[in-house]
Amino acid sequence: MRTRAVVFDAYGTLYDVQSVAAAAERHCPGRGDLITQVWRLKQLEYTWLRSLMGAPPDFALATRQSLAFALKGAGVAPEPALLDALAEEYLRLALYPEARAALEALSGVKRAILSNGTAAMLAPLVEGSGIRPLLDAVISVEGSGAFKPSPACYRLVEQVLGVPPDAVLFVSSNGFDVAGAKAFGFRVAQVVRGGAAAPPQAGPVAPAALFRLLRGRTEALGLDADHVVGSLMDLAGLVD
Amino acid sequence: MRTRAVVFDAYGTLYDVQSVAAAAERHCPGRGDLITQVWRLKQLEYTWLRSLMGAPPDFALATRQSLAFALKGAGVAPEPALLDALAEEYLRLALYPEARAALEALSGVKRAILSNGTAAMLAPLVEGSGIRPLLDAVISVEGSGAFKPSPACYRLVEQVLGVPPDAVLFVSSNGFDVAGAKAFGFRVAQVVRGGAAAPPQAGPVAPAALFRLLRGRTEALGLDADHVVGSLMDLAGLVD
Repeated sequence: MRTRAVVFDAYGTLYDVQSVAAAAERHCPGRGDLITQVWRLKQLEYTWLRSLMGAPPDFALATRQSLAFALKGAGVAPEPALLDALAEEYLRLALYPEARAALEALSGVKRAILSNGTAAMLAPLVEGSGIRPLLDAVISVEGSGAFKPSPACYRLVEQVLGVPPDAVLFVSSNGFDVAGAKAFGFRVAQVVRGGAAAPPQAGPVAPAALFRLLRGRTEALGLDADHVVGSLMDLAGLVD
Repeated sequence: MRTRAVVFDAYGTLYDVQSVAAAAERHCPGRGDLITQVWRLKQLEYTWLRSLMGAPPDFALATRQSLAFALKGAGVAPEPALLDALAEEYLRLALYPEARAALEALSGVKRAILSNGTAAMLAPLVEGSGIRPLLDAVISVEGSGAFKPSPACYRLVEQVLGVPPDAVLFVSSNGFDVAGAKAFGFRVAQVVRGGAAAPPQAGPVAPAALFRLLRGRTEALGLDADHVVGSLMDLAGLVD
């Protein structure tokens, strides 16, 4: 079927979650990388755990609780002012350099975001980065009652855009999201920037390298993407 | 209410999942620690992701797929014979040294395991380690349709033992399991062996240290254990 919509994950796909590292290092010298990586790993864990326990998908809470965990793990007291300062970084994550041009190149089809973020977190992020005019919809999983990769999240796309699953190209750099979207029935493109991470050396590993190993690869869940691309600019070639 | 049953998590609580490291190092010299830690981290991720996608709780499959991911990430080809050899280590994990005596000290109440493992994985583990006679039941989450921390898992305890949730002391070293059991309504003891991990130094970190940071602590989910103990031997004092 002809592709009628390209739907993007936000965190890690259009926006670089690693861009919080500078603020983390500024607030916690020598700990920025560790805090950044543990924060993101736990943020995702907490989304999955909350949904498995039947709690509503509150990404602001998951972000704050995982940050508190990461700070404590790095030996930093999770003071409210510090939690506020770092959590706010999620409202101004850096847009990946090619994202705007990639969205512009897809003007022939509907373009949307489907994100774990709350509507209140996504609005300033999308407005502040200037891509709101390039999007037909910014969809939060809040309306689904669960976080990704619950199928209820992906079902929102048809409800909001009116485009059936087999006419959607879904784009994510997150392996778990690729698996969920694929299981749901989307055609899926996984963005792996810089290619799959090389195996780290034996012995101690920089937290960022371990993060890339854990999250920057295709998963082994038997639900592979239809396409693996190195950049969002490669998407236009996948849309007829 | 009087405690009528003590129910144990298996992997990481009664059995040391780190005991696969020796075999991993033997098969993949210089890579044993990295493979061991990534394997366990992904094994848990894959349980959560599978359940969120609505798949049945097949822990043997999650164990094998996460091992394949870990091997590839460490630059080792996931050959079937290697997958077989390492996955089989889960059938003979080391019992923690104090586990037998701790179970014996709880002979006044019902004692059971509630585990993500399949019945086929748990049987050789429990038989081989010699603690089957000390247990009233070995409960696999297979019957619940989901992995922990889904409440459906914890509901199995009353179905099998006939003991209501408020008469159960649930014991786990896994923070996500503590949170799930607490949300369900059990009294919960978290085992944190050796105390909370000290913050790692700035810079590169041994994979095992990063694992302890990520998994060997209480979570920040707002669902804390009622008791934190350093050893299974402390449990008898919690049962009246």
